[in-house]
Amino acid sequence: MKVAGIITIGNEILQGYTLDSNANAISKELTKRNIKVTIHLTVPDEVFKIKEKIEKFIIKDYDYIFITGGLGPTHDDVTKAALSDLFDSKYIFLEERHNKIMKKFNKVDMPKCQSEILDIAKPLDNTVGTAIGMYFRHKNSNLIVLPGVPLEMEKMLLSYLDFQDSLKIDNRNVVTINTAGIYETKLSKKMQSFMKKYNKKVYFSFLPSYEGVKIRLTGLDARFNINIIKKELLKFLSEYVYGIDKVTLEIAVSNIIKKNKLKLSLAESCTGGFISKRITDIPGSSVFFLGGIVAYDNDIKRNILGVSNDDIVKFGAVSKQVSESMAINVFQKFKSDISIACTGISGPDGGLEDKPVGTVYISLKYLDKLMTKKFIFRVDRKSHRIMTKQAALYMLWKLIK
Amino acid sequence: MKVAGIITIGNEILQGYTLDSNANAISKELTKRNIKVTIHLTVPDEVFKIKEKIEKFIIKDYDYIFITGGLGPTHDDVTKAALSDLFDSKYIFLEERHNKIMKKFNKVDMPKCQSEILDIAKPLDNTVGTAIGMYFRHKNSNLIVLPGVPLEMEKMLLSYLDFQDSLKIDNRNVVTINTAGIYETKLSKKMQSFMKKYNKKVYFSFLPSYEGVKIRLTGLDARFNINIIKKELLKFLSEYVYGIDKVTLEIAVSNIIKKNKLKLSLAESCTGGFISKRITDIPGSSVFFLGGIVAYDNDIKRNILGVSNDDIVKFGAVSKQVSESMAINVFQKFKSDISIACTGISGPDGGLEDKPVGTVYISLKYLDKLMTKKFIFRVDRKSHRIMTKQAALYMLWKLIK
Repeated sequence: MKVAGIITIGNEILQGYTLDSNANAISKELTKRNIKVTIHLTVPDEVFKIKEKIEKFIIKDYDYIFITGGLGPTHDDVTKAALSDLFDSKYIFLEERHNKIMKKFNKVDMPKCQSEILDIAKPLDNTVGTAIGMYFRHKNSNLIVLPGVPLEMEKMLLSYLDFQDSLKIDNRNVVTINTAGIYETKLSKKMQSFMKKYNKKVYFSFLPSYEGVKIRLTGLDARFNINIIKKELLKFLSEYVYGIDKVTLEIAVSNIIKKNKLKLSLAESCTGGFISKRITDIPGSSVFFLGGIVAYDNDIKRNILGVSNDDIVKFGAVSKQVSESMAINVFQKFKSDISIACTGISGPDGGLEDKPVGTVYISLKYLDKLMTKKFIFRVDRKSHRIMTKQAALYMLWKLIK
Repeated sequence: MKVAGIITIGNEILQGYTLDSNANAISKELTKRNIKVTIHLTVPDEVFKIKEKIEKFIIKDYDYIFITGGLGPTHDDVTKAALSDLFDSKYIFLEERHNKIMKKFNKVDMPKCQSEILDIAKPLDNTVGTAIGMYFRHKNSNLIVLPGVPLEMEKMLLSYLDFQDSLKIDNRNVVTINTAGIYETKLSKKMQSFMKKYNKKVYFSFLPSYEGVKIRLTGLDARFNINIIKKELLKFLSEYVYGIDKVTLEIAVSNIIKKNKLKLSLAESCTGGFISKRITDIPGSSVFFLGGIVAYDNDIKRNILGVSNDDIVKFGAVSKQVSESMAINVFQKFKSDISIACTGISGPDGGLEDKPVGTVYISLKYLDKLMTKKFIFRVDRKSHRIMTKQAALYMLWKLIK
């Protein structure tokens, strides 16, 4: 098995101002490709420290050394200088690339250094930013130098990995099964005998979050195809499993709506546009998503969404009646086939004696069906909005799947 | 200045299944206390590797060595074994603590090892979990051993740090200045002589993202109060600086709106509810935020928002005319004092010859003023939505500040 080390560079990370998500992203990709990462290291923006660590990795014969950060144009970007020094290599300026990027990003004063690489290296193209990446071989190690901006890093990383034949993804042995609507404790209990049956063949891990629980199956025996277990588990948990691997609940729901040529609208109160944002994160969502009304203020619930003032006064803005009225009215106004509405108290303030902080009503209208559920999520504001979003999408998924 | 190193332990982190947030959390706390973190290191759950790295940190005379992870009761938790081996120290079982924790968490079968520490160490109490932490001194280093579960780690870390007089929080020496509306290259050029003037007193770092550039000032001389430089810089960059430290542009804009007792409404197309989501992330936003319309489909622009069909046909849905009409109509319908509208092409598809992917129009209506700007952000869909959100809020901030 090939071995890799990851060096991230930046005082910002060491001072705690930036969370190092790059080491995680690189590790994820390498694990998929059956490369073992045995160290993550973060060092300051200092030429000496950077040189020292890279040198050690080379002495230790790491097959791959990934280096991120410090490729920008400012004075504290010293990664290239450190590498140039360590490998006694000069900079070369890629003029054609420079002109192309300047044009693309419309930056007339882009510094030349953004298109300079070491003369021993090959360039890695940046599709979303200006910094250039590079890779080269030294002794037994492949060094891959990437920018620190996560999106730029990730795109460049994939373009490097996908280009190497020896680094193709090995999908046979890991699968992630995404569930919603069931808590970790209940799920692991439910799966106890299932896990016992297969614990020689696969390793089960549970990854809980406010969006549900993911179950990861990792094959322990390369000769055994874990698809057999996957299929059996999907059947066993069919009520909860909305997707495999990278399929989110948003994507799963969208796919069903698209397939059935339906149109969706939203009426959001406590989630404040969050469900809408998540739906429109998906490229091509304009095919089925009409839009929505964020009725944060009660005046908007009345005047724009047409909720009756009597209902708001009698039952409160956070009530089954108002929630249903929001769903029905947006459904009609937007001429949609499906609507989702929610109204609740995400906190930290706004709780009432009979409706504590965390209370939320979610209503769905789907053709001639109407359903409403009440939840109390006793979590902080941010998590409350995530759980409400997820509960609404899970209700819809169960209804239309 | 005291120096610290952080070692996080765990195969899960190295394989990319778990994002290491602990190193970040520890760094944050240490930076506040004027301790310089010069290395983050993640190593596998292996006794040899753990020993090797801790030994190196001690040889290098780190004042503080923080170690997290591998304190649980399962077979792959080997941190204590490594420490015991390295320091030739035996385990001692804290029976009283054991009984207390069993009772508290109602765990009758809690393994004894959860209450064992090294005989050279003092215990650190766990208020939210069962694993025990510990700290001890060896040669010139203080070693602090913490569990890997982030919440347990953080509580224990604070209980350690707050107990040490020498580790009190020092707020004087770091400040972050948050800017928007100017790219990193231009900003660093503009600040060149400013930085030259003060580079003996403070260290300047630039943190660019799709939301703008943050400038961090770190005092190099404890006797010098960096507030003087901060004030001068705020004046120099007044056009761009919307906030200090944790103040986001959303918060800055919200504060001005609240202070002037104004009401805000939104009409979003390409951002699909993202601006609304960001505004309502702020607790108490219901005071000034009425709500919005996500007019993703042109039918909604026409039927709900009242944009004229002629304008859409003649100028296109992504045009100055439609953007302005969206802003004016939501302003009137919602009876607000301010409205923001945006319509654009976030991609990856939908580009036209005269309106490439990335084109976006943003309009503001503020009392009797109306303004519109056109941008072309040549980035991916996700970043396009972030840049549009930020550009809209920056326009508003400049208008009302």
